[in-house]
Amino acid sequence: MKTSLAAGMTLVASVAFISLNTYADEGMWQPPQVPDLAPQLKQRGLALDPSQLSTLKSWPLDAVVNLGSCTASFVSPDGLIVTNHHCGYGALQYNATPKKNLINDGFVAHTKIEELPASPTQHVYVTEQISDVTEQINAALKPGMDGYARYVAIDEAKKHLVQGCEQPGYRCDVYTFSGGYDYQLIRQKELRDVRLVYAPPLSVGKYGGDIDNWMWPRHTGDFSFLRAYVAKDGSSASYSTDNVPYRPKHWLTINPAGVSAGDFVMVAGYPDQTDRHRTADEMQNAIDWQYPTLVAILKDLLAMVDTGSKKNPEVAVKYASFVASVNNTMKYFQGNIDGLTRSNALTIKRAEESQLDQGLSQQTSGGATDGPELRADVTKLRRLVDAHIKQRERLLVMQLMQRGGLFQASYQIVRLAQEKQKPDLQREAGFQQRDEARLLGQQQALDRTFDSGVDQQMLVYTLQRYVKLPSDQRLPALERWLGGATDEAALTPKVAMLYAGTALTDTKARVALLSATPAQIDASKDTWIALMRDLMPDLIAYQHEEKAYEGDEAAGRAGYMKALVAYNGARGLPVYHDANDSLRITFGTVQGYEPRDGVEYTPFTTVDGILQKDTGAEPFNAPPAELAAIRAKAFDGVASPVKGTLPVNFLADLDITAGDSGSPTLDRNGKLVGLAFDGSWEGVSSGWLFNPAETRSIQVDVRYMLWVMHHLDHADNLLDEMQVKVGQSLHPWAWLQ
Amino acid sequence: MKTSLAAGMTLVASVAFISLNTYADEGMWQPPQVPDLAPQLKQRGLALDPSQLSTLKSWPLDAVVNLGSCTASFVSPDGLIVTNHHCGYGALQYNATPKKNLINDGFVAHTKIEELPASPTQHVYVTEQISDVTEQINAALKPGMDGYARYVAIDEAKKHLVQGCEQPGYRCDVYTFSGGYDYQLIRQKELRDVRLVYAPPLSVGKYGGDIDNWMWPRHTGDFSFLRAYVAKDGSSASYSTDNVPYRPKHWLTINPAGVSAGDFVMVAGYPDQTDRHRTADEMQNAIDWQYPTLVAILKDLLAMVDTGSKKNPEVAVKYASFVASVNNTMKYFQGNIDGLTRSNALTIKRAEESQLDQGLSQQTSGGATDGPELRADVTKLRRLVDAHIKQRERLLVMQLMQRGGLFQASYQIVRLAQEKQKPDLQREAGFQQRDEARLLGQQQALDRTFDSGVDQQMLVYTLQRYVKLPSDQRLPALERWLGGATDEAALTPKVAMLYAGTALTDTKARVALLSATPAQIDASKDTWIALMRDLMPDLIAYQHEEKAYEGDEAAGRAGYMKALVAYNGARGLPVYHDANDSLRITFGTVQGYEPRDGVEYTPFTTVDGILQKDTGAEPFNAPPAELAAIRAKAFDGVASPVKGTLPVNFLADLDITAGDSGSPTLDRNGKLVGLAFDGSWEGVSSGWLFNPAETRSIQVDVRYMLWVMHHLDHADNLLDEMQVKVGQSLHPWAWLQ
Repeated sequence: MKTSLAAGMTLVASVAFISLNTYADEGMWQPPQVPDLAPQLKQRGLALDPSQLSTLKSWPLDAVVNLGSCTASFVSPDGLIVTNHHCGYGALQYNATPKKNLINDGFVAHTKIEELPASPTQHVYVTEQISDVTEQINAALKPGMDGYARYVAIDEAKKHLVQGCEQPGYRCDVYTFSGGYDYQLIRQKELRDVRLVYAPPLSVGKYGGDIDNWMWPRHTGDFSFLRAYVAKDGSSASYSTDNVPYRPKHWLTINPAGVSAGDFVMVAGYPDQTDRHRTADEMQNAIDWQYPTLVAILKDLLAMVDTGSKKNPEVAVKYASFVASVNNTMKYFQGNIDGLTRSNALTIKRAEESQLDQGLSQQTSGGATDGPELRADVTKLRRLVDAHIKQRERLLVMQLMQRGGLFQASYQIVRLAQEKQKPDLQREAGFQQRDEARLLGQQQALDRTFDSGVDQQMLVYTLQRYVKLPSDQRLPALERWLGGATDEAALTPKVAMLYAGTALTDTKARVALLSATPAQIDASKDTWIALMRDLMPDLIAYQHEEKAYEGDEAAGRAGYMKALVAYNGARGLPVYHDANDSLRITFGTVQGYEPRDGVEYTPFTTVDGILQKDTGAEPFNAPPAELAAIRAKAFDGVASPVKGTLPVNFLADLDITAGDSGSPTLDRNGKLVGLAFDGSWEGVSSGWLFNPAETRSIQVDVRYMLWVMHHLDHADNLLDEMQVKVGQSLHPWAWLQ
Repeated sequence: MKTSLAAGMTLVASVAFISLNTYADEGMWQPPQVPDLAPQLKQRGLALDPSQLSTLKSWPLDAVVNLGSCTASFVSPDGLIVTNHHCGYGALQYNATPKKNLINDGFVAHTKIEELPASPTQHVYVTEQISDVTEQINAALKPGMDGYARYVAIDEAKKHLVQGCEQPGYRCDVYTFSGGYDYQLIRQKELRDVRLVYAPPLSVGKYGGDIDNWMWPRHTGDFSFLRAYVAKDGSSASYSTDNVPYRPKHWLTINPAGVSAGDFVMVAGYPDQTDRHRTADEMQNAIDWQYPTLVAILKDLLAMVDTGSKKNPEVAVKYASFVASVNNTMKYFQGNIDGLTRSNALTIKRAEESQLDQGLSQQTSGGATDGPELRADVTKLRRLVDAHIKQRERLLVMQLMQRGGLFQASYQIVRLAQEKQKPDLQREAGFQQRDEARLLGQQQALDRTFDSGVDQQMLVYTLQRYVKLPSDQRLPALERWLGGATDEAALTPKVAMLYAGTALTDTKARVALLSATPAQIDASKDTWIALMRDLMPDLIAYQHEEKAYEGDEAAGRAGYMKALVAYNGARGLPVYHDANDSLRITFGTVQGYEPRDGVEYTPFTTVDGILQKDTGAEPFNAPPAELAAIRAKAFDGVASPVKGTLPVNFLADLDITAGDSGSPTLDRNGKLVGLAFDGSWEGVSSGWLFNPAETRSIQVDVRYMLWVMHHLDHADNLLDEMQVKVGQSLHPWAWLQ
């Protein structure tokens, strides 16, 4: 096994760094790449030994954990975890009731006993080991394999590796870098008893709401605290009152003085996906079709939830998380359209591609950088991608359909019953023994986020789109079930009958069905189960096609990456992989930017802005106690004012994306000075193309977090636990009074 | 005659200046006050001898002229005048035809022969003499006079002074400072032959349109050129091809290098009105009722014009100026509501008033600052103002009615016929011999800005509001004419008949009627003339009431100002009069500001912003040649780049308001570096309360003006005339290429 990334690539990165603007901090680096960046990092102010950041096995990176779709970090020896408010939102929602609206009111556990269990699906993943397994995976591939064969070979090789790695309480995954350029086997301790410790009220944690989302100036206290628990013997366990707090090897400590403009900062987190190595055709498809189409669809879905919520307030509670997420997504998509258009990204991309083509055409045959071979790789990926783009409407409809609540529930039930008949290793990914607890958790949690009426409406909506597909792209079983219905009037009663004849809306029934045998499934008269039973062969056939594409794509992307590395390497340009949910580090500087001619965004916002923005109406409804404290300048014990007052959020040119939410922002000594929670609107399309002038990460300033904890929410037990002193009798800010 | 303002007041101002932030440039100073500010002005960078700015009789102030509602300045010995595009807009509109749309296309006269006559009402006023006449006016007042008697006494005293001052080609006016605290007799040479010389296309001159109005960042080329002509003997004359260019004593020269951030600048102009010395009740009435009510009404009026324009494109041309002005006004009113609310202006004002009351109550009787007497003055004004506020709805309706096109035309005709019967000095102000030419000009120009359908609709609209007044506030003759009609259905046909039976829609008939005798008026069967004939006694009675109020108010405001001067003087605070159309100077610094927490506005915008904003659709439709030139960085011959490119507009903390539009912005040497054309949105309510942190004037940068003139519009004849060299063979910006 190799222990780090291909050495050549790492070298390319470090050599090229020197020629770049030292403040243009593009790059989501893998820890092993960090030592190669050492001279630049030292020059920029990093006080830690860079080698300290080269491994997930030591402080500070081993304190950084994965929450699934967010990042978090341990901040005490007792497993206390800090993350964003919007990352702890699920735990709030899970515990909220109409009588006790934790989402609005916030929550503080003043003792461990008061801490509330998060949803069973809320796990904390602590990465313990990373091994390069590229050779092992590639060994399973034979020349001449078609796409599906490649897919299956890779899939089985991954499963073998995972099986050899996993133990109770641990989760292993093979992470794919750039299609199949590299593979890493990552082993994570899976902490399944996660509890809600503290979240400020919504009017702090989501101040500015969807209006301010992606925007600057920002004044959001986007932080919350969880705690991981384990069995008394230290092993991973589901929620139990007998469990004890998890004791991490390391945790982050707080720098209560925060950072200043121009200071070095870094973020370690789990960015989920970037598209920096996509083809120009893919970018064009995103701009011209994908983003606009999705924006239109999401608007329609939101309208359905809104109508449902007006009839029944419970719907609003159930879909609160969905609405928040869809609003976020829509804004993100629109921002991508705007950003890519404004920055002429496509022109730049096409120019880059033609330079790539030219560069490769000048490279001779043979050796590690065989020009003709690399060109063939590039052409292969482009053709593949273009063919797939032609299927885009079908892919979209299938995705929409599969997101339906009961579609998903019935699919999981029927599929699990089938897959259980196979040896574990041959089961479909997601339906292996290791997945069963998760599936159970999902079924148990479903009705907290599901309303039958809304789900039906969304299915009718999707089917109206489905029936417009060319007939060879449709599913035979669904055609039979539809019986020729094509318009809303015909589809609505059909769907209504489907939902009237199912027990899947009942949690107990759903959970019971999850352990049904194939025979029980075959005998079921439940309308959804019956439909899914008939649909399953079509769905599997569709998945087969998609797997074949994935198998081809894996080879295509890896080949394309090879070409990019060869081409850029020859020009001394850095190469790092697109984000893929694996831990990355990004380095940068606290600094504002110029969003447009004549306007500058300063690096810090302050509590003054809360007074300016506040209207008393959501989302600009800071708690009256906060407004009063700001007016009274009651910032007792919080150090280092900005512009003479308390900072709230700050900007840095860190290269982050979704998945990095909740990531600790560290200072030059590796101390926590903030939490990354968003990016600048002008940099929103940086997933495709990094723009150093406008791409900024937005962080909660640790000073604001500490002040809210102490002054407003009286969570001093947590401050003590983190060994932070706030509220001394000697007020360093007394001069402000 | 006194030759300057009360010496005490001036002294107060200069003493207090030292204690203020040297960058907080509140103050619209009268020229004689300037020498007292000398130490501060020198310290800030003024290179001229401050005494040079103490009189309108020498350079540079004698180059600054009044256009009526705008300011302008001479920039060549041949009477070339530079002002804002929106100040030259009337001249463009007057010359625009459907076939030759000068508004959109702009206009350049490459020789004097090509220059086009502006509207006959477009005059240029060159101030030649200012005398303090306070004593003369006050001598006409007797103790115990009631309001109307005071009004008449003041009015007659003013008329006497004016009569004694005026000569053919000259216009004299008595300017009232703070109600009646001071009076000045101002003599202006009235240049009546004004010609349109040059205006850039609308897409430069009004770039950003109403969307950007009052906004930063701004990219408007708000400049245009006129020329004043006189008879061959140098006397003032109406338009004639025999006339020759006016030769001013002095003119401004250009500093083509412009200014930089932090540089000293000053503006001399004719600010029309401020409300800094109004009472708190007046401010509250403005916030709670006046501004919101007017915004609602103006929206309705705009809708009528819009409907009319859709039916007939000529309506759009006729009301283009009205629409521009109403949009500007609405935004201004709304900005006042927002600004006054945001800045808690009323709380501040009430606190100031209570401090004033307290301060005066501590002052003893007797002497120049007799406490009880000053308190009585203050109370008197407050009571007077409050009583007048109770009449606000009636005042509004009367104002609306009097703005109707044919209402105004018929009023002028009927009133002039009556007033002509009196000796000139006893005639109503505005209907004296000296006014007849102006009235004629207005009648001649009316149908360029008037549409019968729109005018009718506006009258119906006003009448619907009128009929809701309490019966004792209505006009008996109008009641008779209405015959009980109260709703739109009844009013519409009534008004339609009024317009069907009049000849006033015809210019010739209108002009002919302006010289009608009372007998001819009495015999007229013209419906509008007949209605106005009946209405006139009621209108005169209403005016009588208003004059009585004005008479009382004059005493009230003067007394209040006396109290303010006494109170502020004791505290070392500066006092200057509210703006009143007289020439003022304001001094400041080129600087940006922080409109809200986390955002800074930089002092300069550049042409880069035009590329960013441009959509190709009005108002963001810069000429293609301009876009191409910006992209090519073809800034040949323009000096001093900002951020490496060409500046467009800049900010300064100059204390200006409406009426200052078109004012020359001068550098430390008195050279022209820009034209003031707008104020910052955040400072829009500074008419009431000056906020040094957010009140900024917006200027066109002279470098942008010169570049547009040379590179886009090829107005090199004017550059030569101003002795500016642009377009040398040696390009100072060659490094940019």
